[in-house]
Amino acid sequence: MTMAGTTTLLLVAAALLAASCGAWEVTVDDAVVAPLIHALRPLLGSGRHAGVACDSWRLGVEAYNVRDWKTVPASCEGYVGHYMLGSHYRRDSKVVVDQAIAYVDSLKLAGNGKEVWVFDVDETTVSNLPYYSRHGFGATPFNVTSFNAYAQEGSAPALPETKRLYNKLLSVGIKPVILTGRAEYLRASTATNLGRQGYAGWMNLLLKAPGFKGSSLAFKSSERQKLQDAGYIIVGNIGDQWSDILGAPEGARTFKLPDPMYYIG
Amino acid sequence: MTMAGTTTLLLVAAALLAASCGAWEVTVDDAVVAPLIHALRPLLGSGRHAGVACDSWRLGVEAYNVRDWKTVPASCEGYVGHYMLGSHYRRDSKVVVDQAIAYVDSLKLAGNGKEVWVFDVDETTVSNLPYYSRHGFGATPFNVTSFNAYAQEGSAPALPETKRLYNKLLSVGIKPVILTGRAEYLRASTATNLGRQGYAGWMNLLLKAPGFKGSSLAFKSSERQKLQDAGYIIVGNIGDQWSDILGAPEGARTFKLPDPMYYIG
Repeated sequence: MTMAGTTTLLLVAAALLAASCGAWEVTVDDAVVAPLIHALRPLLGSGRHAGVACDSWRLGVEAYNVRDWKTVPASCEGYVGHYMLGSHYRRDSKVVVDQAIAYVDSLKLAGNGKEVWVFDVDETTVSNLPYYSRHGFGATPFNVTSFNAYAQEGSAPALPETKRLYNKLLSVGIKPVILTGRAEYLRASTATNLGRQGYAGWMNLLLKAPGFKGSSLAFKSSERQKLQDAGYIIVGNIGDQWSDILGAPEGARTFKLPDPMYYIG
Repeated sequence: MTMAGTTTLLLVAAALLAASCGAWEVTVDDAVVAPLIHALRPLLGSGRHAGVACDSWRLGVEAYNVRDWKTVPASCEGYVGHYMLGSHYRRDSKVVVDQAIAYVDSLKLAGNGKEVWVFDVDETTVSNLPYYSRHGFGATPFNVTSFNAYAQEGSAPALPETKRLYNKLLSVGIKPVILTGRAEYLRASTATNLGRQGYAGWMNLLLKAPGFKGSSLAFKSSERQKLQDAGYIIVGNIGDQWSDILGAPEGARTFKLPDPMYYIG
């Protein structure tokens, strides 16, 4: 093979990969790709795909079409691992937080100390990747014992995009409220973890009481209702689960961070 | 360069592209990719990206984080075009419909003729890609005159995944209700279009009355309320816009089809 041949091959390989690529990060001349891919694909695509289309499954999770799932499909463990460890997860989170900060900037705040923003904990303020990377990125069944042992270490790193939003809210006088489905006995380790990671100045840390039997959605909705009943205005609400976001009162605006590793209803 | 060198280069290129690729369609040995990518990326990614990350923007749209947008970001026109024309759009739609059909299969139906399923029209039952492919895939401002002229042709092709769901519902006795934000004067052309594309047996075709001034969300919610008041059970509701899905009564279960080309509030 000549060098020219190699270059052509690389270009075609790059074009084909880029054309089938959700990330669209590769710089390829559109004029090269467009006729190639448009000639190869039928109008609406074939829809044929061997096994689970992991990126489509992930989109289904994020858009709340795929619900009540127990584990990541076994064939998607590698996909999810790369998604979480690579730049894709961070990039997707950045778009969410950029939208949230633009929303904050658009608000006319009363500045009366009654304006609050609800944050979830796991995969929202802090990342449990150090745990999940050792447990199949969600492809193995959730083990509450080992997860809670990990949570008690209080070592989960901050999610930097969420922290950017958190600091923005503090700077404009909106009070963070931490609302988590973690059990009450994890209060000290959770507070320590948040403090270590630079989350300071929150108004409340609300955890699930030992006797609570309902869903996460019901628990979180009822806690938001209490905030509202106490005269607080929930100007925003951010979490990685739809159960963080749905259920009245939701908050004036909600934000869904990505999480392809687990589902909580 | 030797052939061995070329092969290695191609393998590394493929690994790097695949690792940054949302579609994850390329078959690459995980054992080759994993150490490479995990060594190259910091734990949670850098988050740095020049310009708009088009795949992250699209995810933001689908997860209802990006709202009230007027046009596709100019730098994402090529990305959206390839997404829509290639297999990605179809594959994402397939996951949604697979979930919807699994949901239908899980239902214990009364079979009393009162069970209905609400379908939107544009980018739900039929595809306007023949129009949008000539109008920047949503990157140019929406032109109601030229779009309505196109709609009057009644030539939009069926979206095959939705049609699969539609036929499934007919087979189990759930009545389709077509509910669209299209104006009443497009009734004949819309009905003709649906018929030509094999959509038969719907119970109602509901279009926006000339005098209606509210949002699409308000219009569609009020029409669903009327159905419910008339004794119908909305067992499902599918559309490409969040305004098809949100607003009580939503329906017992909702499904969001992908649409990165336009936003209707």
